[in-house]
Amino acid sequence: MKESLNLNSFLLFDGAMGTMLQKYGINEGLPESFNIVNPELIEKIHKDYILSGANIITTNTFGANKFKLEGTNYRVSDIVKRGVEIARSAAGNKLVALDIGPTGKLMEPIGTLSFEEAYYAFKEQIDNCSGADIILIETMSDIYEAKAAVLAAKENCNLPVFCTMTLQKDGRTLTGTDIFTMVNILQGLNVDAIGLNCSMGPSEMLPHIEEMLSYSRIPVIAQPNAGLPRIEGENTLYNITPEEFADYLEIMAKMGVLILGGCCGTEPDYISKIKQRINGLKPVKRNQKKYTTACSSTKTVILGDGVKIIGERINPTGRRKLKEAIKYGDMELLKIEAVKQVESGADILDVNVGLPEIDETDVMKNAVKEIQSVVNAPLQIDSASHEVIEAAVRICNGKPIINSVNGKDEVLDKVLPIVKKYGACVVGLTLDENGIPGSAEGRLRIAEKIIKRAEEYGVDKSNVIIDCLVLTASAQQSEVRETLRALKMIKERLHVLTTLGISNVSFGLPQRELINRTFLAAALAAGVDMPILNPLSKEIVDTINAFNVLWNNDKEAKNFIRVYSNLDNKNNTNNDMEKSMDL
Amino acid sequence: MKESLNLNSFLLFDGAMGTMLQKYGINEGLPESFNIVNPELIEKIHKDYILSGANIITTNTFGANKFKLEGTNYRVSDIVKRGVEIARSAAGNKLVALDIGPTGKLMEPIGTLSFEEAYYAFKEQIDNCSGADIILIETMSDIYEAKAAVLAAKENCNLPVFCTMTLQKDGRTLTGTDIFTMVNILQGLNVDAIGLNCSMGPSEMLPHIEEMLSYSRIPVIAQPNAGLPRIEGENTLYNITPEEFADYLEIMAKMGVLILGGCCGTEPDYISKIKQRINGLKPVKRNQKKYTTACSSTKTVILGDGVKIIGERINPTGRRKLKEAIKYGDMELLKIEAVKQVESGADILDVNVGLPEIDETDVMKNAVKEIQSVVNAPLQIDSASHEVIEAAVRICNGKPIINSVNGKDEVLDKVLPIVKKYGACVVGLTLDENGIPGSAEGRLRIAEKIIKRAEEYGVDKSNVIIDCLVLTASAQQSEVRETLRALKMIKERLHVLTTLGISNVSFGLPQRELINRTFLAAALAAGVDMPILNPLSKEIVDTINAFNVLWNNDKEAKNFIRVYSNLDNKNNTNNDMEKSMDL
Ligand SMILES: [Zn+2]
Ligand SMILES: [Zn+2]
Ligand SMILES: [Zn+2]
Repeated sequence: MKESLNLNSFLLFDGAMGTMLQKYGINEGLPESFNIVNPELIEKIHKDYILSGANIITTNTFGANKFKLEGTNYRVSDIVKRGVEIARSAAGNKLVALDIGPTGKLMEPIGTLSFEEAYYAFKEQIDNCSGADIILIETMSDIYEAKAAVLAAKENCNLPVFCTMTLQKDGRTLTGTDIFTMVNILQGLNVDAIGLNCSMGPSEMLPHIEEMLSYSRIPVIAQPNAGLPRIEGENTLYNITPEEFADYLEIMAKMGVLILGGCCGTEPDYISKIKQRINGLKPVKRNQKKYTTACSSTKTVILGDGVKIIGERINPTGRRKLKEAIKYGDMELLKIEAVKQVESGADILDVNVGLPEIDETDVMKNAVKEIQSVVNAPLQIDSASHEVIEAAVRICNGKPIINSVNGKDEVLDKVLPIVKKYGACVVGLTLDENGIPGSAEGRLRIAEKIIKRAEEYGVDKSNVIIDCLVLTASAQQSEVRETLRALKMIKERLHVLTTLGISNVSFGLPQRELINRTFLAAALAAGVDMPILNPLSKEIVDTINAFNVLWNNDKEAKNFIRVYSNLDNKNNTNNDMEKSMDL
Repeated sequence: MKESLNLNSFLLFDGAMGTMLQKYGINEGLPESFNIVNPELIEKIHKDYILSGANIITTNTFGANKFKLEGTNYRVSDIVKRGVEIARSAAGNKLVALDIGPTGKLMEPIGTLSFEEAYYAFKEQIDNCSGADIILIETMSDIYEAKAAVLAAKENCNLPVFCTMTLQKDGRTLTGTDIFTMVNILQGLNVDAIGLNCSMGPSEMLPHIEEMLSYSRIPVIAQPNAGLPRIEGENTLYNITPEEFADYLEIMAKMGVLILGGCCGTEPDYISKIKQRINGLKPVKRNQKKYTTACSSTKTVILGDGVKIIGERINPTGRRKLKEAIKYGDMELLKIEAVKQVESGADILDVNVGLPEIDETDVMKNAVKEIQSVVNAPLQIDSASHEVIEAAVRICNGKPIINSVNGKDEVLDKVLPIVKKYGACVVGLTLDENGIPGSAEGRLRIAEKIIKRAEEYGVDKSNVIIDCLVLTASAQQSEVRETLRALKMIKERLHVLTTLGISNVSFGLPQRELINRTFLAAALAAGVDMPILNPLSKEIVDTINAFNVLWNNDKEAKNFIRVYSNLDNKNNTNNDMEKSMDL
């Protein structure tokens, strides 16, 4: 009987396919074509790996996508189907991983491949997965492409999905994704295991694997190359012996790596050496810290770790020119706003393009793409429509925040599945069918409902951010204080993150920035984690900088002194004070 | 056997002495001289009042002080002793009140009579009280003089002390004391009953008595004149009949007045009519609200009712010029600071003149007098020496705050009796022999100790104001937040008022006003009632104004709009924001 996948014990992958083909004298031709022209050789290589002790073998389908097969006579479906059949036949009672490599094309905005084109290319491969036990997405150097592949796998088959990426020497992928961001995005997309493969030998990979282990809450995969390559004639050779290779992989296994294997240059004796080392070894029990994060492809913002600023300015409400630009699909103004806000200290950008007269889905998708082409801040997708939200979250490069759900059942039941599927965080507004409760206790009850429902949908409460909704001091003066009471109560009792829009409170009053900065300081003292505000307001940014000194976030006031000590010489504010201190 | 004083039932005083002397044909000569030259007549008048139903008669000693007897052959001691003897003899088993009227001189700073001179004049009268049952200080028009008389009584005899003042038509005394302030100061000085007498008839006095009843937590006295005076020949006649007079006094008794009587124009038949009306009437049970207050002679600041600003600037620490001025006894700079701070919105002024090289007691007394000559804000007497504190609190016109006690036994045991005796409020610093505790819990424990000890000394905890002591963010960064946590904890658990010095937190950092205003907003949100700060800082005052809108203290933002709406037209701050809002 076939073994079943068990992620509580070590899982040993095979080594390289290409290296073995080369060993058998094959130096040219599309490797995947051998599924058709020489299936016996492929099956032999698979069997050698099974004999060396692999629990799972990888189909010879790495490059079997429409882009790489373009101009050949081969069809994706044929090569993939045959690839799975051969592996299945060789595997015996062992497992088969359908291998999915990168498309070989650069994605938007650097290249021309759109997210949906990538998705459909991967879908074409995955549609032929029948017979495989898992989907292995590997050697990915673009997290955006990896996201397309993961979604294609998740949406088109029921198999577990593993995803490994490949790093450059600087510890980032080709498109700049660091390990922490990689873990956050892929874990968010609910992959079953995550890892690194190719590009480097085990010694070079070791520190990166160690870093990944420190973040990942799911099983970690390591499949390094057999050291560094050198070219000899038509062959590429690697400098690490099976014994040395196994030394490193044993260290990794003892660190906590659960899934081991080899990439370029590794052969069956590498696998059998690893097999010997993990025999009798107990997998490390790991339970890494939960982080709440929002990510672009190259940057993770840890939410709840000090004050994070959400820039509010990409929103047409009350802004005539921005409204016009959105209406006519002119994205320049949005890009300028994005850049200015990030330069002024925004950690995250809220994106709202809600106008009645537009196709909001189209404009939102376009806005997300365009904004991501100029800034690396994570985004907060802000729409009243769950269709708009899903479309944007799907094509968003990274791990966004969804703004928002509220206490209404219909909203919760539409939006929470999206939150779960894409690994997003979600803002929960404390309002429901009856509006915004006047009392803090009423808002607490709605927050409790949102969190409970989120957990029912598999969304951990660490990913729910409650917004207690401040109204204007000019119209609902007594509720401003109640909002902060609600915020404190919700933080103390529910232990969730909180956000709050700051600018609205001053609507209709003079000196709005004075009201806003004072409210901001009060909200920060009440514990708001990620206020939504205008980062172009100097008074607002000043207030956050000062608060970070007072709250011991800005240790030894280093940032504060850097930002302001020169200012004291330039303008006289402080000198004036000193003067007035000594009349 | 003589009746004893019972403040749970009505007490009926006599009527006028002067009116009766006039009735007996005496229109000239010092009325008090008749104690010597015609004691029989005085005794007869007393007896008439006893016969008409008075429980207590007033000695003929109203003007028997050294100033009024100057140039006569009479000595204060002779007249007072005789006055008490005559009344005692006439009273039978009824009570005798030693009558103390005003000195007839104007006190500093308007006049030349010093507080201690007034005190000694009253002491001279009170030293001869033997045989009397209470001290009645009456017809006072200067609360400062009343304070001197009350202290003279309290310190030189063991008798209960009643004090009644006399109002002008505007409801204030001649020197401007309103009824609320009068009640707060005299109640603070631990008098046994408080009231109004003379100057107006019962109908005019009624609304003022009603106001006094609404504030006073001790028995209230009403002794109006017999209406309004008119001069006929050598006589002054009054327009209210005994029946009408009794109508009003019955209304007052039903409102809650416990101690009744008549002043100018009232005769025994007025008293007997009142007697009839209160026969069978039950005294009203009153339990008025506790207010925590600080007062000058003409203004009461209710502490805990919205944010109150304590001006910090009268303090030589770190201020060279002020130090010099204090050292050389030049009070001009202190007066300028006082005026500027009050003009900028300070509700209370902290006064600290602590320098090693001066006689702090002398300088502090002088500073208090001089500052009170130019501003009407209540003062906070700030010194590390209990001798300095007592000297200053004693001569302070009004009801000051004492800054400070702390958790040290020696300090508590020296300062709390002063707090009790003068009816002051007291700031309690959360430090003790071991310094300032690092944790909020440690500070809470010291606050608890201070409050417990205060209550043991008879100081209600509503008069204790806890200061959680913020340190500098540059040196003790992690404790800033802990200070606000302590503040919140102490407010929530102990229900006391809190104060906090704001300016110190930014010491050693650039942009001190930015740090200060941000800390202030956080402290206000944490619930500080009366921050100590620099009211000349525009950013600080702006922050308080904005906070008062957000916290619903400034209803409908009326004050805020008044202060700032013109500014928006003058400068461009808000316009800039509006502009940046619509790029
Ligand atoms: Zn490789
Ligand atoms: Zn009178
Ligand atoms: Zn009188």
